[in-house]
Amino acid sequence: MLLSNSFIPILRDNPSEAKIKSHQLMLRVGMIKQASAGIYSWLPLGFKIMKKIEDIVRQEQNKIGAQEILMPTIQSSDIWKESGRYDDYGEEMLRIKDRQNRDMLYGPTNEEQVTEIFRSSIKSYKSLPQLLYHIQWKFRDEIRPRFGIMRGREFYMKDAYSFDVSDEEALYSYNKFFLSYLRTFKRLSLTAIPMAADTGPIGGNLSHEFIILAETGESKIFTDKRIFDLNSDDTELKRDSLDNMRKKYEAFYAVTDEKFNKKEFEKIVTENNRLITKGIEVGHIFYFGDKYSKSMGASVDLPGGKKDFVKMGSYGIGVSRLVGAIIEAKYDDKNEIMKWPLSVAPYDIALIPMIKKNDSSAMEKTININNELLKNNIEAVIDDTDENISSKIKKMNLIGAPFQIIIGKKSEGDLLEFKEVGGETKNIPLSKIIETITNKKNSI
Amino acid sequence: MLLSNSFIPILRDNPSEAKIKSHQLMLRVGMIKQASAGIYSWLPLGFKIMKKIEDIVRQEQNKIGAQEILMPTIQSSDIWKESGRYDDYGEEMLRIKDRQNRDMLYGPTNEEQVTEIFRSSIKSYKSLPQLLYHIQWKFRDEIRPRFGIMRGREFYMKDAYSFDVSDEEALYSYNKFFLSYLRTFKRLSLTAIPMAADTGPIGGNLSHEFIILAETGESKIFTDKRIFDLNSDDTELKRDSLDNMRKKYEAFYAVTDEKFNKKEFEKIVTENNRLITKGIEVGHIFYFGDKYSKSMGASVDLPGGKKDFVKMGSYGIGVSRLVGAIIEAKYDDKNEIMKWPLSVAPYDIALIPMIKKNDSSAMEKTININNELLKNNIEAVIDDTDENISSKIKKMNLIGAPFQIIIGKKSEGDLLEFKEVGGETKNIPLSKIIETITNKKNSI
Repeated sequence: MLLSNSFIPILRDNPSEAKIKSHQLMLRVGMIKQASAGIYSWLPLGFKIMKKIEDIVRQEQNKIGAQEILMPTIQSSDIWKESGRYDDYGEEMLRIKDRQNRDMLYGPTNEEQVTEIFRSSIKSYKSLPQLLYHIQWKFRDEIRPRFGIMRGREFYMKDAYSFDVSDEEALYSYNKFFLSYLRTFKRLSLTAIPMAADTGPIGGNLSHEFIILAETGESKIFTDKRIFDLNSDDTELKRDSLDNMRKKYEAFYAVTDEKFNKKEFEKIVTENNRLITKGIEVGHIFYFGDKYSKSMGASVDLPGGKKDFVKMGSYGIGVSRLVGAIIEAKYDDKNEIMKWPLSVAPYDIALIPMIKKNDSSAMEKTININNELLKNNIEAVIDDTDENISSKIKKMNLIGAPFQIIIGKKSEGDLLEFKEVGGETKNIPLSKIIETITNKKNSI
Repeated sequence: MLLSNSFIPILRDNPSEAKIKSHQLMLRVGMIKQASAGIYSWLPLGFKIMKKIEDIVRQEQNKIGAQEILMPTIQSSDIWKESGRYDDYGEEMLRIKDRQNRDMLYGPTNEEQVTEIFRSSIKSYKSLPQLLYHIQWKFRDEIRPRFGIMRGREFYMKDAYSFDVSDEEALYSYNKFFLSYLRTFKRLSLTAIPMAADTGPIGGNLSHEFIILAETGESKIFTDKRIFDLNSDDTELKRDSLDNMRKKYEAFYAVTDEKFNKKEFEKIVTENNRLITKGIEVGHIFYFGDKYSKSMGASVDLPGGKKDFVKMGSYGIGVSRLVGAIIEAKYDDKNEIMKWPLSVAPYDIALIPMIKKNDSSAMEKTININNELLKNNIEAVIDDTDENISSKIKKMNLIGAPFQIIIGKKSEGDLLEFKEVGGETKNIPLSKIIETITNKKNSI
């Protein structure tokens, strides 16, 4: 992609209206543009990154056997009246009258809609479990939208729902999502910690928030820091293995402030292991049994002729929010250097030619390099503008491709000036560069 | 995918509320479920097909150099007041008050939003042309939503916008989209004919609708039938080649009823070439010059210091509607046989084992076949239910994988009972089946 052809409107300075670094970078480098309060358009650079995150989220949902559907954004109020949440939900729900004067709303979440789909289709325990998910725009009419897409009004979210015949089976489903969340965030190169959480308006009695550490986070967290050393690499999609994984995590104290109890914290966690800090919620899972199935009459036939209400859980990942969360975790705003994880980077590499007047040699060399990269499935952004080299590098440090090649005077012969962002410059041949990037991509 | 694990709720009979065959099939085979009037949830089978269509649409947009963005569903009324369309649009626009009592709306189209993005980012002719597109949900509050997703209220659409420095350049952009539309519909195995059309509420003076023939279509069309023999296979993405392509199509009379003139039709088209029939609009492109850029102040600096309003066009494809349009074109509702084009089929092939009590041999054989297919990137749906073979075949004829293998008594030795839906059954080895499907896939 030639930068001169692209729609990447870069600002010279940080926009004054942005208070946190993700919001600053996203406006600065033309990833998003505000449409109205808390509502954003995604420009090509931001869209590319969000799409890559979405694909990883999708792949990890599919791996645990969840099936993708797509529920509409506009819902009827009828199902919300059935569940009893129409009045409860308050002003965050965007309520709409259509031309026939029917009460509609822009879905803030989808427990009712998916329960309606389930109850009209599934009648027997034999068809369980069912894990359904969708990735769709939601709307919550925040009174004070802020921090760009981190707390916007229209936001993109993956929400999944599980349907099981018993509590025991339902917890098996819950644990599958628990694992898939750990795997998803790991592929995004984030350390997200599952923390015991309140269930809020979703309801139920079991819930975990997945939180990444960040100064600018809105969640206060209290944890035993040894939980950061855990991983789920050896966990298999089997009952026992999943049980062990959750026990391993739950062995360490880790809660958000609604669940915080000072006495308990100080009793359980030794002083040198205590961590009190802030974080960003990137995922939230709930088990709420028959809260919706009972009020909405979603039951299945059991073996032996009885019926029972199906046991449900719900599982959310903030896809648009993750774009900001990754920036909060990775952006060095002091030095204005962003390095996207290769798994979601908008481009694998930046090609930065030094272009002199009446001399097309650097650009020709760049095009040849790009052709070689393309053959190896490596996507580059080429800064073909006539700016000087230092402002080009500055710009590319903001766009955030994790690798750079500078094509100029020093790139004599076969050796190229190659750098992993944040690392040292090396003079190595293109074949070696291709090998380096390909190996890193394959290890994602 | 085992059918017993899938969420494909199939109805025994055609639903009585559906009047046209796409609506019937989509409800019957569990592709969609109505959420409220004119608003549908997409279940796994329908979702998969729509996603494949979306991907083809996206690839063909990218091929002409269009860049993907994503504008929000909820827009501010301010920009619509600037363009003057806020009052013009009428009751089809879903108008919303947010909690701060601001006038918002659910976007029925995006000329205003994209013009706002453009004018705040692009200042010079040097950054032109710009081709931007997005694939997003839209809402039009139809007074009588009908025919399922064919005329729903919430619908999924690709809309693109071009920005150019002059009429001449803008027509070059127009022609690029014209070509990309012909290519897109061809990959969907549809014959879509570009017809001169009225511009309606979008405005402008040049417009083509892309229409496929269908009895149930809502567009009346009048055409020289020789236009169906044309193709764009040799057209290149170059000015002259694109001009010639459009001239070739425009040499034949082809209009929708708003543009129809009986005298002209009978004068230009000889009697045996006249075709008067019905069709479904699957795409619509518009050139409207400075209609929005002038009212909204989107201008660029020209060489020499002058400024001028940018010249715009817009280009829509109904992604969700295409799912129904393909069914209207391909579904044999008399015999209840659907054969999806391989490019968008939910599964490449159906495996239909004859399962006898206390005999797992057919199922074992099926799993082995499936493993071989997977190795060759061929996706199968396996009917592992205990229904009899004829009701399994009936069901698979509705799901519409374009190939079937029946695994039963007759499949002795290496030979399998293989059939392309609508064709003859052949007894051939698996390797030959894989070769057949792979060749067909590669030729898409």
